[in-house]
Amino acid sequence: MTDTWLPSLITSTPQEGFELAITLSRRGVKYTQPDVEVLKKLRPDYANSAEGLTWASQVIAINFQTVAAANNYWRT
Amino acid sequence: MTDTWLPSLITSTPQEGFELAITLSRRGVKYTQPDVEVLKKLRPDYANSAEGLTWASQVIAINFQTVAAANNYWRT
Amino acid sequence: MTDTWLPSLITSTPQEGFELAITLSRRGVKYTQPDVEVLKKLRPDYANSAEGLTWASQVIAINFQTVAAANNYWRT
Amino acid sequence: MTDTWLPSLITSTPQEGFELAITLSRRGVKYTQPDVEVLKKLRPDYANSAEGLTWASQVIAINFQTVAAANNYWRT
Amino acid sequence: MTDTWLPSLITSTPQEGFELAITLSRRGVKYTQPDVEVLKKLRPDYANSAEGLTWASQVIAINFQTVAAANNYWRT
Amino acid sequence: MTDTWLPSLITSTPQEGFELAITLSRRGVKYTQPDVEVLKKLRPDYANSAEGLTWASQVIAINFQTVAAANNYWRT
Repeated sequence: MTDTWLPSLITSTPQEGFELAITLSRRGVKYTQPDVEVLKKLRPDYANSAEGLTWASQVIAINFQTVAAANNYWRT
Repeated sequence: MTDTWLPSLITSTPQEGFELAITLSRRGVKYTQPDVEVLKKLRPDYANSAEGLTWASQVIAINFQTVAAANNYWRT
Repeated sequence: MTDTWLPSLITSTPQEGFELAITLSRRGVKYTQPDVEVLKKLRPDYANSAEGLTWASQVIAINFQTVAAANNYWRT
Repeated sequence: MTDTWLPSLITSTPQEGFELAITLSRRGVKYTQPDVEVLKKLRPDYANSAEGLTWASQVIAINFQTVAAANNYWRT
Repeated sequence: MTDTWLPSLITSTPQEGFELAITLSRRGVKYTQPDVEVLKKLRPDYANSAEGLTWASQVIAINFQTVAAANNYWRT
Repeated sequence: MTDTWLPSLITSTPQEGFELAITLSRRGVKYTQPDVEVLKKLRPDYANSAEGLTWASQVIAINFQTVAAANNYWRT
């Protein structure tokens, strides 16, 4: 991908960090399947499945570990 | 989401930290599927399934790693 | 939950730490499905399944990482 | 369990550490299903399944992370 | 494999680090199945499956943890 | 196993470290199922399956985290 979508792992707050973890999780999907039309078609498969949502939450949790460590856990 | 739900990863006790890990796990689901009605319908699919509960517990465990590290494991 | 079940992550020995990791794994399940009767019914589904037992062991392994780090790996 | 099976996470060599990781993985199963007869019956289900073996290897990998960190990666 | 494909884990930016994590994830597949023709045939199986894409994103997330730590999270 | 297959986690390059992670992943399988004939028979089950290859890549990624940390990420 030629656009810059990840200039930094640093965020102001834990919540923004969590949202960055979601972005990372989605980018992992998009790099694997760049066709937006296919992604749209697949969305109901996981967004309406208990398993699919749990797995999505797991990928976010793994990426949040990285973002939280990068930000020293936003300790003040 | 516009509301502030994660101001900090710091908690007073390990148990509160575990409960925050549960909140993080549920937020990961909710960001992926914001429709509360759909989430309610899916609940029996995992809450009454041995597999679904194990996977839910796994996501909580991953998020608890993050929260525990943030709190220096509540060492006194 | 109102009872205190996790006052500390510190244990005397690695083995007690492993048993605490099991407690954490079970609590992750119990927070998601608090109905003890449902949990009892589901037990045979994973305790008699090779897959279910491997996944249970995985959740314990993830929680044991947290407990072991909290205890500085019980290095003497 | 009343016997002492995990007195320490420290091992002399990385290979002994890997074998300890296997022990931890099996103990995670055994705490969940203590009945040895049931475990024997389930063994073919994963030991003869590509998926089952990959998952078993994954639990070992997670536990090996813990044991390796405890031993400072056996750096000399 | 005799070619050099991983001279370093260091990258200039987080985004390049994420792309290196994708490379690592693909290499993990390729070492297991070196036959490029087989890989091409399997591609639709995961690139058109919600589950497959989530799992691919998870492997990337795990490798990104490693790359991000190697780069001290690109803190400036 | 009586042979020495893991004298050290230290490697000269990241790429050798990645290959050691593959060795660790395979050993995890082999300790669980030591019968080489069974392993040969199972190989097509995962090497020709998109899911199986993704999971294999995931175990490698987890082991690579360990090897990379042991080598201080080959920072120079």
